[in-house]
Amino acid sequence: MLRLPHPTGMYTRLLGLALGALTFHVGRLLAPFCASGNVMARLVMKFGGTSVADLDRIRNVARHVKREVDAGYDVAVIVSAMAGATNQLVEWSRQAAMLHDAREYDAVVATGEQVTAGLLAIVLEGMGVNARSWQGWQLPILTDNAHGSARILGVNGAELIKRFKEHGQVAVIAGFQGMHKETGRVTTLGRGGSDTSAVAIAAAIGAERCDIYTDVDGVYTTDPRVVPKAHRMDKIAYEEMLELASLGAKVMQVRSVELGMVHNVRIFVRSSFEKPEDIDPSKPPSGTLICDEGDIVEQQVVTGIAFSKDEAQISIRRVQDKPGVAAAIFGPLADSNINVDMIVQNVSGDGATTDLTFTVPSADYERARVTLEKAKGSIGYARLDGATDVAKVSVIGIGMRSHAGVAAKAFKALAEQNINILAITTSEIKFSVLIKATQTDLAVRTLHTLYGLDKA
Amino acid sequence: MLRLPHPTGMYTRLLGLALGALTFHVGRLLAPFCASGNVMARLVMKFGGTSVADLDRIRNVARHVKREVDAGYDVAVIVSAMAGATNQLVEWSRQAAMLHDAREYDAVVATGEQVTAGLLAIVLEGMGVNARSWQGWQLPILTDNAHGSARILGVNGAELIKRFKEHGQVAVIAGFQGMHKETGRVTTLGRGGSDTSAVAIAAAIGAERCDIYTDVDGVYTTDPRVVPKAHRMDKIAYEEMLELASLGAKVMQVRSVELGMVHNVRIFVRSSFEKPEDIDPSKPPSGTLICDEGDIVEQQVVTGIAFSKDEAQISIRRVQDKPGVAAAIFGPLADSNINVDMIVQNVSGDGATTDLTFTVPSADYERARVTLEKAKGSIGYARLDGATDVAKVSVIGIGMRSHAGVAAKAFKALAEQNINILAITTSEIKFSVLIKATQTDLAVRTLHTLYGLDKA
Repeated sequence: MLRLPHPTGMYTRLLGLALGALTFHVGRLLAPFCASGNVMARLVMKFGGTSVADLDRIRNVARHVKREVDAGYDVAVIVSAMAGATNQLVEWSRQAAMLHDAREYDAVVATGEQVTAGLLAIVLEGMGVNARSWQGWQLPILTDNAHGSARILGVNGAELIKRFKEHGQVAVIAGFQGMHKETGRVTTLGRGGSDTSAVAIAAAIGAERCDIYTDVDGVYTTDPRVVPKAHRMDKIAYEEMLELASLGAKVMQVRSVELGMVHNVRIFVRSSFEKPEDIDPSKPPSGTLICDEGDIVEQQVVTGIAFSKDEAQISIRRVQDKPGVAAAIFGPLADSNINVDMIVQNVSGDGATTDLTFTVPSADYERARVTLEKAKGSIGYARLDGATDVAKVSVIGIGMRSHAGVAAKAFKALAEQNINILAITTSEIKFSVLIKATQTDLAVRTLHTLYGLDKA
Repeated sequence: MLRLPHPTGMYTRLLGLALGALTFHVGRLLAPFCASGNVMARLVMKFGGTSVADLDRIRNVARHVKREVDAGYDVAVIVSAMAGATNQLVEWSRQAAMLHDAREYDAVVATGEQVTAGLLAIVLEGMGVNARSWQGWQLPILTDNAHGSARILGVNGAELIKRFKEHGQVAVIAGFQGMHKETGRVTTLGRGGSDTSAVAIAAAIGAERCDIYTDVDGVYTTDPRVVPKAHRMDKIAYEEMLELASLGAKVMQVRSVELGMVHNVRIFVRSSFEKPEDIDPSKPPSGTLICDEGDIVEQQVVTGIAFSKDEAQISIRRVQDKPGVAAAIFGPLADSNINVDMIVQNVSGDGATTDLTFTVPSADYERARVTLEKAKGSIGYARLDGATDVAKVSVIGIGMRSHAGVAAKAFKALAEQNINILAITTSEIKFSVLIKATQTDLAVRTLHTLYGLDKA
């Protein structure tokens, strides 16, 4: 767990929480006690904006919820704002002032989820299902004060568990929002934050599973629009999903997967377009389970192929090969809030200078060049080269840890297709190659076939 | 104060609060202490839905606020939802289920004010005015649990006062909403509830004045659409305003006036359409001050004429003239939640039976008839008569207390116009006559002239 390839500092912070009064562990501590009574299994269900876009869609969500209640689950539902609602609220905030106070922005945009939660509770009650809505501050869901992209610090699930036991009451919870633990102001978690709300609540109440209903029916080995032979995975390990999410697969917010991994929440990605009536309760549901690698019996060496075309490459020629030069380059970029991804430094030929290549998001390309040109004096280099017509293709699989030669196989296959590799980076469970953008689809298809991912 | 013609039970409840920890008196207790420092006068400003209908209107409100800040006031602004927003939220709730849980309805509709408060705070900050938004639960504004039409039980103004003193920060407060003191759920105060929010906050922070910005520029002697010679009053006593509001003048919510009277909050009704730039700070503003009768130097005998066409009359013929019969009639009506207004019982001629006439809102007319027909056995009467083409015209003035013959003068003037009086009720500071609806305008004009209210 600590070998996460993208250290974010989140883990220490989350682990530190175990000492707090309001923590995700509330649910865990209560669970063994509950188990002695006639306690139902708990389930978290999360529905995004398109799934609650209007009253008809909200009724559809309610039928999904009732289906699980009828199957014997205690249910917490997490909802996003009705599709379009958040955009309207963001637009109004922008009209109010281009540079707006993030605390006020959060107070405004958090209302979208509040509306959906109330409406879904009303519909559920109309169907005879005992339900009530919860806003972030009511549970509370406590966060830090990074308004607009706050991190959840703790969720109090005690009241939800009490109501499950006493009234079998469904909790309808506004996603995407929380409350700053000190100021008591409303915070939002950033785009896709409802996924994180759902996983955090699942941890707090000790849910058996956290179902993420979305507009795709699971996680695929790669983008089916590029590789028609891509197939849906039944299971994927947290670490692999994290890589997929970080590398461009937009199924889930990265942070929600991190949180699931830390608290071992079984996350199930499934379709919100499936009709509740068409689901056979006697069969396992269709979707992809994101879980601990230990729960995956037949582990593949390679699980999926991700790609991103939003990459730009910068090469710094003949930079001084001496201590401190990396700091001189990457310090100014970090100060400009530019994320640097792949870094390749060749061993110098002359022992005095070297070439250094790295990638940045293509949106930051021009800004990165300007930053580096300004810092030319302190870095010391001969020339800056760059290109935006590049793409990153990544091969992911926990099995790589125990299998040698996985990457070598790829390099050979790509060479056979005349695909030139501009840069390579590797980590324990993935490797990425930088190639010409025009060759992306060919590379992805080649690798998908190479590692036996094409569906039969 | 205790002679209020419409006893609601509110006063004892509010007075009882003085013993609580969170009360309106927080502001009062602090005020003398503050006065020893360099404390600014405090002002409450309230803007309704049409005044904040879009970003342009919200900017106009912000300029009004800045004008008062520049004039040296510490300001709390109370805002309603953007015009139309509440209707949309109500409509969604109705679509979700015809019989919806009032607690969920409140959670949904309260979001409208939250959006406006956040947007106004953003605009103010963009203009360089230090401001922050507050939701009902954040102060908190505590209410009972009559969801949909909750009553305010207490407002904690301490944090607002602290911020006035430390940062000169403008408080932008979502009107119309509060939090139930026990469950912590969001409540709403009913239509026009933002007026009540404003007056309650003015009481809590000890505001010098509570300015209600509205689409009329003050309170008129009667409806100017009926009597072009109606004029705006400079001042009106709480008791008179209560009568006007109860009797059909829709300037302010009745409860807000009651609250103002109990806590002696000076309420100033003024136009939101006046441009902030056109207001001369050296002159007293235009509008109507609702205040204690002691503050009104030149007290008129009659202050205003109100009327209501939404009345229906029911006469019960030859009812038994014995103890308990009134309870037999009005008990079932109260059980059906029908408000009975004017009641006239003639002294019986035969000593055994009498006729009893009363009015109900015309919307409840049919329901009232059905209720009474069902109860015919227990009441015992010969016949039910009724009419919906009636109107109530009321003459209001605190001066009536000390002037005899005010009503007699009216009866004579109306008779001269061939207006037949169907029923009469009187109280200390007003009397009402029931007449044919078609004669309403003539009656109002006649009385307006009779009592010298026509403008010069």
